[in-house]
Amino acid sequence: MNIESRWVVSFVIISFVCITGVFWPAVNETSYINSEFITVDHIVPADVAWLLTSACLVLIMTPGLSFFYGGMVGKKNVISTMLQSFICLGVVTLLWVVVAFSLAFGEPIGIQSGSHFYSFIGNPTTFAFMDYVGVLPHKQLANTVPFMLFALFQMKFAVIAPAIITGSFAERVRFISYLLFICLFTLLIYAPLCHAVWYPTGVLGSYFGVKDFAGGTVVHMSAGFAALAGVLVLGKRKNNQHIPTNIPFVLLGTGMLWFGWFGFNAGSALAANGVAAMAFATTTTSSAAAMLTWVFFDRINGRKVSALGACIGAVVGLVAITPAAGFVSVPESMFFGFITAVVSNAIVNASYLKKIDDTLDVFACHGVGGIMGMILTAIFAHGENASLLHGGWIVFAHHMMALVLVSIFTFFGAYLLFKVTNWIIPMRVSEESEHIGLDLSQHDESLDPNLKTVV
Amino acid sequence: MNIESRWVVSFVIISFVCITGVFWPAVNETSYINSEFITVDHIVPADVAWLLTSACLVLIMTPGLSFFYGGMVGKKNVISTMLQSFICLGVVTLLWVVVAFSLAFGEPIGIQSGSHFYSFIGNPTTFAFMDYVGVLPHKQLANTVPFMLFALFQMKFAVIAPAIITGSFAERVRFISYLLFICLFTLLIYAPLCHAVWYPTGVLGSYFGVKDFAGGTVVHMSAGFAALAGVLVLGKRKNNQHIPTNIPFVLLGTGMLWFGWFGFNAGSALAANGVAAMAFATTTTSSAAAMLTWVFFDRINGRKVSALGACIGAVVGLVAITPAAGFVSVPESMFFGFITAVVSNAIVNASYLKKIDDTLDVFACHGVGGIMGMILTAIFAHGENASLLHGGWIVFAHHMMALVLVSIFTFFGAYLLFKVTNWIIPMRVSEESEHIGLDLSQHDESLDPNLKTVV
Amino acid sequence: MNIESRWVVSFVIISFVCITGVFWPAVNETSYINSEFITVDHIVPADVAWLLTSACLVLIMTPGLSFFYGGMVGKKNVISTMLQSFICLGVVTLLWVVVAFSLAFGEPIGIQSGSHFYSFIGNPTTFAFMDYVGVLPHKQLANTVPFMLFALFQMKFAVIAPAIITGSFAERVRFISYLLFICLFTLLIYAPLCHAVWYPTGVLGSYFGVKDFAGGTVVHMSAGFAALAGVLVLGKRKNNQHIPTNIPFVLLGTGMLWFGWFGFNAGSALAANGVAAMAFATTTTSSAAAMLTWVFFDRINGRKVSALGACIGAVVGLVAITPAAGFVSVPESMFFGFITAVVSNAIVNASYLKKIDDTLDVFACHGVGGIMGMILTAIFAHGENASLLHGGWIVFAHHMMALVLVSIFTFFGAYLLFKVTNWIIPMRVSEESEHIGLDLSQHDESLDPNLKTVV
Repeated sequence: MNIESRWVVSFVIISFVCITGVFWPAVNETSYINSEFITVDHIVPADVAWLLTSACLVLIMTPGLSFFYGGMVGKKNVISTMLQSFICLGVVTLLWVVVAFSLAFGEPIGIQSGSHFYSFIGNPTTFAFMDYVGVLPHKQLANTVPFMLFALFQMKFAVIAPAIITGSFAERVRFISYLLFICLFTLLIYAPLCHAVWYPTGVLGSYFGVKDFAGGTVVHMSAGFAALAGVLVLGKRKNNQHIPTNIPFVLLGTGMLWFGWFGFNAGSALAANGVAAMAFATTTTSSAAAMLTWVFFDRINGRKVSALGACIGAVVGLVAITPAAGFVSVPESMFFGFITAVVSNAIVNASYLKKIDDTLDVFACHGVGGIMGMILTAIFAHGENASLLHGGWIVFAHHMMALVLVSIFTFFGAYLLFKVTNWIIPMRVSEESEHIGLDLSQHDESLDPNLKTVV
Repeated sequence: MNIESRWVVSFVIISFVCITGVFWPAVNETSYINSEFITVDHIVPADVAWLLTSACLVLIMTPGLSFFYGGMVGKKNVISTMLQSFICLGVVTLLWVVVAFSLAFGEPIGIQSGSHFYSFIGNPTTFAFMDYVGVLPHKQLANTVPFMLFALFQMKFAVIAPAIITGSFAERVRFISYLLFICLFTLLIYAPLCHAVWYPTGVLGSYFGVKDFAGGTVVHMSAGFAALAGVLVLGKRKNNQHIPTNIPFVLLGTGMLWFGWFGFNAGSALAANGVAAMAFATTTTSSAAAMLTWVFFDRINGRKVSALGACIGAVVGLVAITPAAGFVSVPESMFFGFITAVVSNAIVNASYLKKIDDTLDVFACHGVGGIMGMILTAIFAHGENASLLHGGWIVFAHHMMALVLVSIFTFFGAYLLFKVTNWIIPMRVSEESEHIGLDLSQHDESLDPNLKTVV
Repeated sequence: MNIESRWVVSFVIISFVCITGVFWPAVNETSYINSEFITVDHIVPADVAWLLTSACLVLIMTPGLSFFYGGMVGKKNVISTMLQSFICLGVVTLLWVVVAFSLAFGEPIGIQSGSHFYSFIGNPTTFAFMDYVGVLPHKQLANTVPFMLFALFQMKFAVIAPAIITGSFAERVRFISYLLFICLFTLLIYAPLCHAVWYPTGVLGSYFGVKDFAGGTVVHMSAGFAALAGVLVLGKRKNNQHIPTNIPFVLLGTGMLWFGWFGFNAGSALAANGVAAMAFATTTTSSAAAMLTWVFFDRINGRKVSALGACIGAVVGLVAITPAAGFVSVPESMFFGFITAVVSNAIVNASYLKKIDDTLDVFACHGVGGIMGMILTAIFAHGENASLLHGGWIVFAHHMMALVLVSIFTFFGAYLLFKVTNWIIPMRVSEESEHIGLDLSQHDESLDPNLKTVV
C-alpha cells in the first residue's frame, strides 16, 4: 500500500463509520427494560453529578499526559509526542463507541466450569454504536447511573491507556503505524483485559479474584508492558541523549494528571459516597509519599532534587495506588507510594533498561508501578478473602498467578501486534526523518516558528 | 476624546458601578416568593452540585480559548491575543450583573399575536445588580437550582462569546476600542439573541421553534458572524503571514476547551440526569469524529496531519454538536462532527476567506460550525415537531428562516456596532503599532523578556 | 550537619513515616460512633459530590500558583519557583495526615472562662495518621459528608498556604531550608490559626467572632505576613531587576487559580446549596471588578494596561472576597474587589515595599488583600452580630482586635521560624548559586535545555 492510499483508506473508514451513524437504527428505549437494565428511578442524581465530573477529570488526563511527555522529549519531537496522546481522544473514542465497549462489557463469551461461568471477552455486537446504551442503569454495572455514563467513564480509561505507551518509543515512531497499533491494542489487548478484570464473570476477577479498584492492572500494567514490547520492536533511537525540552510543561502535565486522577480513582467508586472519599484520600497520600521519596532517594544517590524527579515520583505514586485506592487505609497508602517510588527509581536508574532506550521510562514507571501496585494490593487489600493479610497465602498466590498471566498476555500480545503493524506499515520512520525530528517530518510543525518555512 | 481621558472615563465607570454596589438596596428575599419564584425546598442538591461544577468548567473555557488563539498568532501578538479573551472575564461579568442578565432573562418585552406572546428582549431593570436573583429557584428557568446559579451558568456563556470573536481581528485591534465593542456586542447582540432563543416566550424559540441545546446559535453563530463583520470593518493585516508561535499552547487550549465544553453541553441539561449523560456522550463523539476527519481530510488534500489540524477539528466538532447535544443519538453525533469538519475544512482552505484575512479562521470554524450545527439540528433533533426527521418540512423551513434571521441580525448588527465603535475610538492600531506587535504597543509586554526594556 | 546528611535525614524521616503507616493499628470504625461522629445515613450524597469536586479544584490551585509565580520570575529561576509550590503537595499532605490535621481539628486545648471554653490548638494525637477519620460524618465539622472528605478539603488549604509565601523570597532561597520552614510554618502558624478561626471553640471564632468564610484570614493573611517576614530575614536579591519570563504562564496560572478558587470559596459552604451558589457569585464578581479596576488604575497612573496587571488584579479580587464569600451580596462583592484592587495596587507601586524586595509582591497582594478582606468582612458581613453594619461598633472592634492579633502572631511567629530555620540550615543560597540561578544551582535543571549539560 503506498503512502497516499493509506490515508485515503483512513478517510474512507472514518467517513464510512460516521455516515453509518446516520442510518443506524435507533433502539426503542422502552423495549430493553429487561433482565439487564433497570428503570430510571434507580438513578441517584448525586452519583450522576460525581460521575459526570469524574469523566471530565479523566478526560483532562490525556492532554495532561501529552504535556507530561511532551515536556520531557527533545525539542524536535515535542509536538509529535503531544499529538500522539491527543489523537487517542479521537481514535479510541470512536473505536469504543463502535465496537470496543461491546468487547469489554458486552454479552460475555467464555467457558462453563461446573457451576461457574468464566468469560474472556464481550460480544462485539452487543452494544455496537451504543445500542441499548442510554439513560437506563445497567443492573450489574454501575446501577445508580445511566449506562451511558458508565460507558463514557470507561471510555476515558480506554483513551489514556495507549497514550501512556507512546512515551517509550517517542522520537522514532511513524504516525500512521502508530494509529494502526492503537486500534489493534484497544481491540485485542485493552478490551479483553478490561473484560477479564472488571466484567462480573471476567476470568481474572471471578476466578483469580483480582482486585483492581481503578485500573492499575487494566490500564497501567497493560500500557507498561506494551511500552516495553514497543521499544524492543522499534529499537533504540539513533541519538538517545535525553534532555527535557520544557520542564514547566512536565509540571503542568503532572498537575493535570494529578487533578484528573481523582476522577480516575475516586470516580471508580461509581458513586458519591464514603468509598470515593477514601479513594481520594489514599490517592493523595500515596502520590505525596512517592513524590518526596523519589526526590530524597535521588539526592542520597548523588543526583539533585529536581522538578522532573518530583513529577515522575508523584505519577509513580498515583500508578501504585490505583488498583488499591478504595481497598486500603491512608497509612497503608503512604507505604504504597514509598516502596514503589524506591523500586521504580532504582529501575529507572539501572543500566539494563537504559540500554533498550525506553525513551521516557514508561515501563519503569507504569509497568513497574502497575506491578508493584498489584502485588501490594494482593498483600494489603481489605475485605473478605481479598489479600494476603485479609485471606491468606492461597488468595495471594491466585493474585500472583494472575499477575504472571497478565504480564505474559500484555507483553507478548503487544509484541505480536507491534510486529503485525510493522509488517503492514513499517513502524519506524526513516533515519533522515528521525534526524530532523518527528515534528517536522511527520507533521510539518515545529516549536520554532521560523523552522516551518525552511523545511 | 483624547487617549488619557478615555481611560479616566473607564476608571470612573468601574468606580461608579462598584461603589453603587455598596448602596444598592438589598431586596428582601422572602418578599419575592411569588408567581416567578418557588421555595427553597424545590432545590435538588445533586443538580446544584453538577451546575456548580459546570459553571466552573465553562469558566475555564475562556482561559482555554486564550491559549487556543494565543498559540496560533505571531510571536509579537501572543500576550495581547490572550488578554483579549481574558479581559472578557472582567468586562462581561460585570456587565452581566448590572444589566445584561436582565436584558436576556428579565421581564419579557414583545408583542401579543392572538393568544401568543412573543418577546425580543428582557427588561433591563428586572434583575439589575442581581436584584431578586438569590437562592430561590425560578419557576420557568432551571427550577431545581438557585436562580443565582442559573444566572452564573449563563454568565459564563456570555463571557466566552465575545472572546471567540477576537481571533478574527487578532494582531491589529486597539485594546480600548475592543473593550467598548464587547460591551456593545453583549448588550445589543448577545443578550437579545439569548432572550429570543432561550427565554420561554422568546421569539426564535417559541415562534420559530429553534432548538439550541447549549448555545450553538446563541454563542457560536453570533460570534462567528461578528468575527466576519469585524474583519470586514478592520481590514487585512499589513503582514498576513500565518506562523503559529506555540503549538503546545494550542494543544493546551484545546484540552481546556474540550474539558470545559462538557460543562457547556452536559451542564445545559441543567440537572444531573440522563439528558446530561447523553449530551456528554454526543459531545465526546462529535469532537472525536471531527478531529479525525479534519486530519485525514487535510492529508488526502496534500497537507500533513498536524497537531493544529487535530485541535481545530476537535473544536469544530464541539461547535457543531452544541445546539443538538441533548437532542440526538451518539451515532448521529458522529455524523455531525464528520460533515461539519469536511465543510469547515474546505472553507478554511478556500481562497475567498483567506483574502479578507480572518486571522484565526473564526468564521470558518465558529460561524460555519454554528450554521452547520443549526442545520443538522433542524434535520435530526428528536422530539415532537423538533426537526425535519421528527416533524417534517414545515418545521425545517421554520428553522431555516430563523437561521437566516439570526445570520442577518448578528452579521449586520455586529457590522453596525463595529462601525459605531470605530467612529468613537478607531478600532485599528497605527501602522507602526501593528508592525512592532500589539504585545509591546498596547501592553508593554513581550514573550521575549529582554524586549520589554528596549522599547 | 553537613549537606549530605541533611538529605539522608530527610530520606530516613520519609521512610520512617511511610513504614510506620503499615504497622499503624487500624481503628475499628464501628467503635467510634459516639458523641463526635454520626452514622453514615446522615451523609448527603450531593454534598459529597460537590465537596469531592471542590477538593479537586483546590488541589489544582497549587500547580496554578506555580505557573502564576513561575511565569513572573527571571528565566534562571522559573523551575525552582514552580517546584517550591509543587513540593507542598508532598510535604504538607503528609504532615497533615500525620499530625497537622489533629493540631487544627483535634480535641481542643484551651482555657475555661466562666461558662465558655476557648481553645487555641488541637491535640496532635487525636487524628494521628487519620485515626478515626473515615466515612462517618463528624457532628460539628461538616456533618453531611464523610469526615475524611472534610480532612481532605482542609488539607488542600493547608497545602496552598506555604506555596503562596514562596513568591516573596523567590530567586534566593535554599531548597532544603525552605522544606524545613514549611514544616514549621504548617505546624506552628497555620494549624493553630486554622484551629482558632474554624474550630467551634477556637478563640478567634468563638471569642472575637471572626468570620472567615473560606480562609482569607487563615490562608492569605498568614501567608502574606509570613512572606513579609521571609523577605526581611532573607534580604534583597543581588540583582532585583524584575522581568517576567513568561507571561502566558502567568495567564495560565491565573486561569487555574480562578477555576480552583470556586472550589475554595463555593466549596467552603460544605454543601451543594444556595450558600455555595452565592459564594460562587460573589467570588466571580469581586475578581472581575478587581481585574478591571487594577488595569484601569494602572493606566490612569501612567502604566500600560497589561496582562500581568489583569492577572494580579483578578487574584487580589479573589483574595479580598475569600473571607466574606458566603456572607455578602453580589453588589457588595464588587466593592470588595474594587477597593482592594486600588489599595493593593497603590501599595505594590509604593516605594517602601520595593526597597525590601518582596519579589512577587506577595505581601502587597495576599497580605494586604487578606487584611482588606478581613476589614471589609467586619464591615459588611450579613447575619446577626456579624459586622459593623449588622451588629455595630462593638462587633467591629472585636474583629479589628483579632486582626491585630493575627497580624502579630503570623508576622512575628513566621519571623521567628525563619530565624530558627536559618540557624539550623542557612536559608539563603550562596552568592554564586544566586548568580547562576536556582534552577541550575539547586536542581540541575534549566529552561534552556542546552544549559544543563554545560554547568
